[in-house]
Amino acid sequence: MVRAATPEDKFSFGLWTVSWAGKDQFGDATRAALDPWEYLGPVAEAGASGITFHDDDVVPFGASDDERTAILERFRAAADEVGLTIEMVTTNTFTHPVFKDGGFTANDRSVRRFGLRKVLRNVDLAAELGASTFVMWGGREGTEYDGSKDLNTALERYAEGVDTVAQYIKDSGYDMVIALEPKPNEPRGDIFLPTIGHALGFIAKLSNGDIVGLNPETGHEQMAGLNYTHGLAQALWAGKLFHIDLNGQRSIKYDQDLVFGHGDLLSAFFTVDLIENGFPNGGPRYTGWKHFDYKPSRTEGFDGVWASARANIETYLLLAEKARAYREDPRVQAAFEAAGIFESAQPTLAEGESVADLLADRSAFEDFDADAAGARETNYVILNQLALEHLIG
Amino acid sequence: MVRAATPEDKFSFGLWTVSWAGKDQFGDATRAALDPWEYLGPVAEAGASGITFHDDDVVPFGASDDERTAILERFRAAADEVGLTIEMVTTNTFTHPVFKDGGFTANDRSVRRFGLRKVLRNVDLAAELGASTFVMWGGREGTEYDGSKDLNTALERYAEGVDTVAQYIKDSGYDMVIALEPKPNEPRGDIFLPTIGHALGFIAKLSNGDIVGLNPETGHEQMAGLNYTHGLAQALWAGKLFHIDLNGQRSIKYDQDLVFGHGDLLSAFFTVDLIENGFPNGGPRYTGWKHFDYKPSRTEGFDGVWASARANIETYLLLAEKARAYREDPRVQAAFEAAGIFESAQPTLAEGESVADLLADRSAFEDFDADAAGARETNYVILNQLALEHLIG
Amino acid sequence: MVRAATPEDKFSFGLWTVSWAGKDQFGDATRAALDPWEYLGPVAEAGASGITFHDDDVVPFGASDDERTAILERFRAAADEVGLTIEMVTTNTFTHPVFKDGGFTANDRSVRRFGLRKVLRNVDLAAELGASTFVMWGGREGTEYDGSKDLNTALERYAEGVDTVAQYIKDSGYDMVIALEPKPNEPRGDIFLPTIGHALGFIAKLSNGDIVGLNPETGHEQMAGLNYTHGLAQALWAGKLFHIDLNGQRSIKYDQDLVFGHGDLLSAFFTVDLIENGFPNGGPRYTGWKHFDYKPSRTEGFDGVWASARANIETYLLLAEKARAYREDPRVQAAFEAAGIFESAQPTLAEGESVADLLADRSAFEDFDADAAGARETNYVILNQLALEHLIG
Amino acid sequence: MVRAATPEDKFSFGLWTVSWAGKDQFGDATRAALDPWEYLGPVAEAGASGITFHDDDVVPFGASDDERTAILERFRAAADEVGLTIEMVTTNTFTHPVFKDGGFTANDRSVRRFGLRKVLRNVDLAAELGASTFVMWGGREGTEYDGSKDLNTALERYAEGVDTVAQYIKDSGYDMVIALEPKPNEPRGDIFLPTIGHALGFIAKLSNGDIVGLNPETGHEQMAGLNYTHGLAQALWAGKLFHIDLNGQRSIKYDQDLVFGHGDLLSAFFTVDLIENGFPNGGPRYTGWKHFDYKPSRTEGFDGVWASARANIETYLLLAEKARAYREDPRVQAAFEAAGIFESAQPTLAEGESVADLLADRSAFEDFDADAAGARETNYVILNQLALEHLIG
Repeated sequence: MVRAATPEDKFSFGLWTVSWAGKDQFGDATRAALDPWEYLGPVAEAGASGITFHDDDVVPFGASDDERTAILERFRAAADEVGLTIEMVTTNTFTHPVFKDGGFTANDRSVRRFGLRKVLRNVDLAAELGASTFVMWGGREGTEYDGSKDLNTALERYAEGVDTVAQYIKDSGYDMVIALEPKPNEPRGDIFLPTIGHALGFIAKLSNGDIVGLNPETGHEQMAGLNYTHGLAQALWAGKLFHIDLNGQRSIKYDQDLVFGHGDLLSAFFTVDLIENGFPNGGPRYTGWKHFDYKPSRTEGFDGVWASARANIETYLLLAEKARAYREDPRVQAAFEAAGIFESAQPTLAEGESVADLLADRSAFEDFDADAAGARETNYVILNQLALEHLIG
Repeated sequence: MVRAATPEDKFSFGLWTVSWAGKDQFGDATRAALDPWEYLGPVAEAGASGITFHDDDVVPFGASDDERTAILERFRAAADEVGLTIEMVTTNTFTHPVFKDGGFTANDRSVRRFGLRKVLRNVDLAAELGASTFVMWGGREGTEYDGSKDLNTALERYAEGVDTVAQYIKDSGYDMVIALEPKPNEPRGDIFLPTIGHALGFIAKLSNGDIVGLNPETGHEQMAGLNYTHGLAQALWAGKLFHIDLNGQRSIKYDQDLVFGHGDLLSAFFTVDLIENGFPNGGPRYTGWKHFDYKPSRTEGFDGVWASARANIETYLLLAEKARAYREDPRVQAAFEAAGIFESAQPTLAEGESVADLLADRSAFEDFDADAAGARETNYVILNQLALEHLIG
Repeated sequence: MVRAATPEDKFSFGLWTVSWAGKDQFGDATRAALDPWEYLGPVAEAGASGITFHDDDVVPFGASDDERTAILERFRAAADEVGLTIEMVTTNTFTHPVFKDGGFTANDRSVRRFGLRKVLRNVDLAAELGASTFVMWGGREGTEYDGSKDLNTALERYAEGVDTVAQYIKDSGYDMVIALEPKPNEPRGDIFLPTIGHALGFIAKLSNGDIVGLNPETGHEQMAGLNYTHGLAQALWAGKLFHIDLNGQRSIKYDQDLVFGHGDLLSAFFTVDLIENGFPNGGPRYTGWKHFDYKPSRTEGFDGVWASARANIETYLLLAEKARAYREDPRVQAAFEAAGIFESAQPTLAEGESVADLLADRSAFEDFDADAAGARETNYVILNQLALEHLIG
Repeated sequence: MVRAATPEDKFSFGLWTVSWAGKDQFGDATRAALDPWEYLGPVAEAGASGITFHDDDVVPFGASDDERTAILERFRAAADEVGLTIEMVTTNTFTHPVFKDGGFTANDRSVRRFGLRKVLRNVDLAAELGASTFVMWGGREGTEYDGSKDLNTALERYAEGVDTVAQYIKDSGYDMVIALEPKPNEPRGDIFLPTIGHALGFIAKLSNGDIVGLNPETGHEQMAGLNYTHGLAQALWAGKLFHIDLNGQRSIKYDQDLVFGHGDLLSAFFTVDLIENGFPNGGPRYTGWKHFDYKPSRTEGFDGVWASARANIETYLLLAEKARAYREDPRVQAAFEAAGIFESAQPTLAEGESVADLLADRSAFEDFDADAAGARETNYVILNQLALEHLIG
């Protein structure tokens, strides 16, 4: 049995995960919609200490200010009661038809203004509720047809939107950062900022990029056939891993939003290993919330909903135990050494070595035995099998 | 019949394209290997005015300095004779076993030093030959197993390598830029800098990123299911589209390197439309070489090799004609207008409008009829069908 | 301009295509739901002569018998009025929660009995309306988790279900065949009968397989990275191509249901070439309905809906013209000859040649010059470029 | 520690796995080529009791009869010495240029005759060596361009070829079956018989299909995004699972040929569960060889080669232990019951129940509470988490 989760684990769930009623592209809801606060108790019992939501998850689109206030107060009180921190808030700019062509990049300027207002309003709410991260998933920012957008002005508008929100956060003195969530496609044919990389490149061009980072989701990267752990690493290396969305995906297909670990399990192990143990040679660490963004399968009733919420946490904790033992195993440390993983921390040029010095070093090139170097053992398969044995042994 | 290519078209080929002898993962070469200069005449006849190469395409790995000099002189003379500009040079850090774990990110430091030396040597050659672009495809920089590298130090080493080369170019006073070529996988399970986006994010962290940009390849982006034209657009938006590799790919699978247009044809049309006509509202343009990086199918003899080289250029020119007519068609311009493509150029906030102004604008939110906006026609399908009719009509 | 469609073209649409209101996995409907008969006029005007539907597209799930009769009479009259043949009927066993685990393969036997009854009831309706084909898309027959089904009994139940329906058709004397529609995934993680091939293999084991064939959909095969035209060819070769669903898909991702030709255009050309012109050496032909199963993009209003319906037919007719000219071009016929396409019709063993004869033929092996044969030109690239020139030239 | 393998485990390796020297599409060999018999000792030590090969793995293409005989004798003696059974033999019809367009489906008839002779010669060898299975992987049977083959005559020729070989086996009185190995692509753009399903459909049309079945490979199915265990199940259901190729693949990309379990680990668990424990309700079982068809990563030296060979077997045995415990766990059996897995074995129609009876059963339809049935728990997530806990707990 795996140990119980604690607040130090910083597990959180999107409200929309457990409250997803099972309505999909081809089918009606299979579960009832409860009131938002009804989900909070079971989520806390499952081991979470944080909750997150889109505005529309809690307050119906178009609700009056009074309704909104009343609902939010009730929600907040319920969260407090069960000890759930509202760690992140995000805005729904994808469900209502007004956003059918995007919120920040819609060709229709009035839609963009409306979208921006909806987001700004939600920023205030997020700040009020004490959220530290404000996530933006631009799921409708994209195209089905390459000719339907000026791709340059679309990026201009996207940057304008994000920069405006970031400026507003700064101007308001909110202690909050923005985390962009990339996704390659679905519901649009091609979504702007399709991967961690594209978002990093985008942020680098922003005026207020200093408070804009990433919220990468396991399945979203895997939908492009990309390695999630590699993506997390590049985001960490760039100082931009602000939040994470953990879930499961099985190969390149529609967005499955499975329980974390119910997709590519070996990849999940290395993801947890990175989060829990950091890089082998040290360096930037992720210390934020472990946020699950999954959907309880449509086949399930509420027993299955709560079981799946627990499964995310149990799997994470199991993998964390395995990853710790893996790193502590002297055989693994020896294999790291044999594989040259520590050698990778040595700069290619020695300290103080100039390019001229390198060019003058005959041992580096003229006298280097490339064939011998090419024949060296790397021990990578042995190391991978050690990981697998720790995982399932 | 399509018009003949001219030097103004700036078509170029990698020498390794027509000289690929058909050796693949499962089979031996089906064509003879000619001497490097023997390919130049037919390439020029096909309509190219530029040629590019990896060091090892021309000079065998490990050749003596004298051999090297003699071969390069002969190659250069042959290129001059048929009027081919050596517009780009790139380094092979993937064929020899020494690079089995990468050139810049190998765990083995001696390999990294050797790789860096090989690249620097080639930079001198590129400058001497007048190449304006130095491409780096890090095809072996990556992993099969997440545990086999410290992903952070690997990125550190990658950045160190690229920055060192860029510094050397600057210090040497060479008029040359570096163009990184992303690829998601093959020959490694996961390659570092898998997409245009990841490379943009990487460049943003470099010390010498000002002379480092991209060389995106059609098929490489499509191997991750990504939209190549979208990728080019983000690279242009970021001021980083330094070079392009055009070819064809059919869906997500191994790297096919088909003739440009023999893959996703509709996508190729929009790629050419972007290159030839720019964004609908103006903005950054690509004015560099149109470089084909394809492989003549292994089934073909030399007739097929030359025919496939010509096919790249013919297809590009056909698409360029179609794209020009598409843009000039008043129906298309009207459809652009109807689709809001010009409206996309209008900033979301009016000139001088502050966030406070936006928040005070009740028409933007409180009085905005979201349902009506959501019901508006976008005309995107109509516009796409116009493009298709121009393409095949 | 392309010619107008005629009844001989046998174009038909699923009612659910134009009536799709734009509700997707992440968003609400963007278009109103009209009464079923209101779609028929525009569909006929677009050039269709046939219409098809799921029971629930026309009659709400759970309607009383009287309501059902009244609605169906009105629908039938409306179809007659605009000259639309009801050429195919299919059953919705995927929208209602009762089918969340499938209709024929649900573990819950009472659900299977209900599903079978719903299908049988619809068979009677199909026969009454004169439909010649009864399509079965088992979109919910599958799993997310390999352990959740006994995969053998699931296939047993699937076969039992299809065989029961087929037997009922025979026993009732209906002049109707069943066409199974494969799909690899979505809405289930893995759907049973994921491809044309799996369905062919399944049919071969049925007791009543003689009246069971296929309804392959362009995008469904492409979602598995498979070649749709190849799939059609194998279905034709097996005598099992009973119906087709034409649409568009861009690479491996969620089910896009784009307009036919708005996905992989070169592939669409060869699909139409096969349908219109048959195999180069003759053989089995498809002479059934050309059925479009697409979704008007969610961004569109009703103008876009009708425009997209027309676009399917216009594109098909354009491609048919191109394909005819391609086949009639003497250069293409010469290229066929040069590529050995006619030689492919010659059996490997001569007429009357025994294996012993072959083994005794030294010219076939001992004296065969494999190197010379391996060096022969195949002219495949030249031929493909001819096709491309016909398509866009 | 996992137990040692025994002959009863029936583990076998392709000789071409451990002897792969690391030459790939982009790189030269990183390991030496040993003599064929030198690989046999380590393979036996790793736990294998069987070995398999392509003719050209052992005897160079074009060797004289005397050379061939001598080499084969030495190989056989070496296999005997270390106790390796030659359980399967297969023919290389893909490496030599003569097969660049296929062996059985080449447009060039002389190539087909040569290919058939090469295969028939190898059938004799297989029989002489006592192999029980003759595998055919038609990796070059396919196209890059849809127009380059008459897809119907190609399938005719394919069927002619396989039927001829099968007839020869029967006529020769050999106790051997043929196992076709599907693959979707690579090295051809689209390979004929791309999946388990397509091969099953193909076999159903053969004259000698009774001795023709399948040899499905893990990675090949996963390269099409298909579920390998589902595929095995359909092959078993069809009575056609004659042999299996186990390895690892990470999502849809080039053919990785990783160690079994180093790809999708959760899927590998269910594959082993099926092989070791059969379907939950009984039914057809696979009792043949567990054949590993993988490639030791190109980064490795010979230590890595042998370690990777051992890793396949260790992983299989670990998974087998886990799968056994999973099935024996009363909680799992209870979860099977709760999930309706045993109910799935009950036919939808009761024994002796006619369709008329079903139609008359009001409880099945008219009085059936579909909403209540749709709301039932399936317990699938709970069951999957139990599997995951057994796997990594």
